[in-house]
Amino acid sequence: VTGSLDGIRVLDLGTRIAAPFCAGLLGEQGAEVIKIEQPGSGDFMREIGPFIDSDDGPYSLFWAVEGRGRKSVTLDLRRPEGQALLRRLAEQCDVLVENFRPGTLERWSIGPSDLPDRLVTVRISTFGQDGPYSARPGLDRLGIGYGGLLHLTGYPDRPPVRVGVTISDYLTGVFAAHAAVAALYARDARREGRGAVIDASLYGASLRILEWTIAGYDRLGVVRGRQGNRLDNSAPLDNYPTADDKFVCIVAGSDANFERLCKAMERPDLLDDARFTRLADRAAHGDVINGLVGEWTASLPADEIERRCVAHDVPVATAYTAADMFADPHFAARGDLATIDDPVIGPVRQQAAYPRVVGEDLPNPAGAPRLGEHTDDVLGDLLGLDADEIARLHREDVV
Amino acid sequence: VTGSLDGIRVLDLGTRIAAPFCAGLLGEQGAEVIKIEQPGSGDFMREIGPFIDSDDGPYSLFWAVEGRGRKSVTLDLRRPEGQALLRRLAEQCDVLVENFRPGTLERWSIGPSDLPDRLVTVRISTFGQDGPYSARPGLDRLGIGYGGLLHLTGYPDRPPVRVGVTISDYLTGVFAAHAAVAALYARDARREGRGAVIDASLYGASLRILEWTIAGYDRLGVVRGRQGNRLDNSAPLDNYPTADDKFVCIVAGSDANFERLCKAMERPDLLDDARFTRLADRAAHGDVINGLVGEWTASLPADEIERRCVAHDVPVATAYTAADMFADPHFAARGDLATIDDPVIGPVRQQAAYPRVVGEDLPNPAGAPRLGEHTDDVLGDLLGLDADEIARLHREDVV
Repeated sequence: VTGSLDGIRVLDLGTRIAAPFCAGLLGEQGAEVIKIEQPGSGDFMREIGPFIDSDDGPYSLFWAVEGRGRKSVTLDLRRPEGQALLRRLAEQCDVLVENFRPGTLERWSIGPSDLPDRLVTVRISTFGQDGPYSARPGLDRLGIGYGGLLHLTGYPDRPPVRVGVTISDYLTGVFAAHAAVAALYARDARREGRGAVIDASLYGASLRILEWTIAGYDRLGVVRGRQGNRLDNSAPLDNYPTADDKFVCIVAGSDANFERLCKAMERPDLLDDARFTRLADRAAHGDVINGLVGEWTASLPADEIERRCVAHDVPVATAYTAADMFADPHFAARGDLATIDDPVIGPVRQQAAYPRVVGEDLPNPAGAPRLGEHTDDVLGDLLGLDADEIARLHREDVV
Repeated sequence: VTGSLDGIRVLDLGTRIAAPFCAGLLGEQGAEVIKIEQPGSGDFMREIGPFIDSDDGPYSLFWAVEGRGRKSVTLDLRRPEGQALLRRLAEQCDVLVENFRPGTLERWSIGPSDLPDRLVTVRISTFGQDGPYSARPGLDRLGIGYGGLLHLTGYPDRPPVRVGVTISDYLTGVFAAHAAVAALYARDARREGRGAVIDASLYGASLRILEWTIAGYDRLGVVRGRQGNRLDNSAPLDNYPTADDKFVCIVAGSDANFERLCKAMERPDLLDDARFTRLADRAAHGDVINGLVGEWTASLPADEIERRCVAHDVPVATAYTAADMFADPHFAARGDLATIDDPVIGPVRQQAAYPRVVGEDLPNPAGAPRLGEHTDDVLGDLLGLDADEIARLHREDVV
């Protein structure tokens, strides 16, 4: 069985993470993805670490992940001939994804009004395509900052802390992929071939998942802040240290889960303690009960804590490192760590495609392409250029 | 112009956040969403705070946000008659979204094999539909724990800290919505009406966005950890305190941005300091240069820091609170805070639909429904039940 988007062709004009990730997700659903890169330099992701030695010199493992599942075509979009070729390529494609500063594509005469009506164009930017801040420089951290996720993350007694990955880039990429496929659906099912232009801002993606934060301010005047790992109205609940220097998250706020946890801890006496009888009691004595749970976890290795909690149906998680994932039988059984065949450094374990479709083989993306690896093939096959013409474009550094 | 998924009908069997959020995103793209709730109790989100007083008693603002944009039909899926009605409803729908523990739908005879082939079924769960952990209890925090995002978030000298919202719920919901629409596209464009079953685990969503973490362990043996807000290889970069008790994120690691920041700070002398000449120099003296920037930010209010940085094209963000968003002209210009008309408490400002489609009005979702508000209409219109039959179902607590 082929992927859902088999037959769809995507132009990835993005750099760094958000837009290329969006294009790659369409690829994981079966689309063909053609990445357009600046001749000579290519995507900035090729330049950032961590690096591994290779026959080609230091090679970015970050690029090996984010660049996978696509072809690479070099094309100088700053020159009119490159722009003309881009317009011709767009005629052969269904989706175009980009994350330049707003106005850049228009300046290069490859904006939506220069491109076919049937194209679905995904425009990702820090602040969106319009509004007073749209021309400002930006990147992932500004997305979580203005989008409100940063202020909510961390400990109350410390500055807000970033999420450990570039979350607004990824989140925006997935939202945009969703909207792009919906626009494709409408184009082919109901709109007689008319595409759409999607405006996805980084800050907007964080804002969209901000729970009750906006409503709470509007109707209660509550300015929500950081709470660390505990909640005022629930206990026990925290990330607790273990005897083997890991952390386990235990969620046992409800009366039912607390009773189960007491059994897992072999502490039935806690159930008779008036401070811990009901959720509200435990919340009022959160430091005490969280402290007791923490003493217990500190006496055992993480895997034993997990074993005892699972035996009593208490929700538990170890804060997994990469090493934990490689050793985990569940990850192995589900094939979550895929082996991607990189053209420069060979097999590299990476996160697999996500989510899966039941009964279908997981797609296994091709490794990240060398810069311009597919330039000649794409220009020949899609645009019908002959070898002399392609050679001239190379000589003149258009590709 | 109607939404991209106009004409698509979605059954939301979800509770809490991940699955209902997925269904709601399909709704924001134009689909009709029918939420199935347990008679008497309904979705757990109706029970958690923050609450506002209303004529109906304490009313959950969290529910007002997560429940919006759908109809509510009560139906007891634990009883055979409820299951039979669900199967009939599924005949009239395109997508079904659920997040029960794996095996639950099958036990109720409403699993994928009991439902029409043309249905796209989205199954969200903590650990996925198979594998040794699939039957374990779980929720959002386990997703970030096993998925590796938790271990990477926070300060190195503190336990890992959760992201300030239930990020694995939301992230899984968006990924699943993307896959669901792709499956709809395939069903109607290429697969002659055959749907699909999507298996989206909470931990898998976090894993998918883990950057180079897996590849770095596989090829370099690096067990990636937390780094707080700074990076070893870049400076200045941090969330800095301001004179008005806010925090600003300034990203000025590159040589070009550092030069601009020095101008914004009116400190051209820093450019002549050998410790700060190049990125590698600044990274080696990260504490010094971050300290100097922090002294500067602490002397000014956040809006003045923003103004000076923006004037010099330096990426900057204040860690926005809800109050900041309500006061921000960019949010106002783009309509990011929508007014949703709630049937119980009236107008409530909330995060708007996201992302937008250029040239189309933003969809304005209906307010979160009262429990069972649409039961009679849906049973009558979609299934053709008459008033007597519906009255009997009410009497017998099937609906």
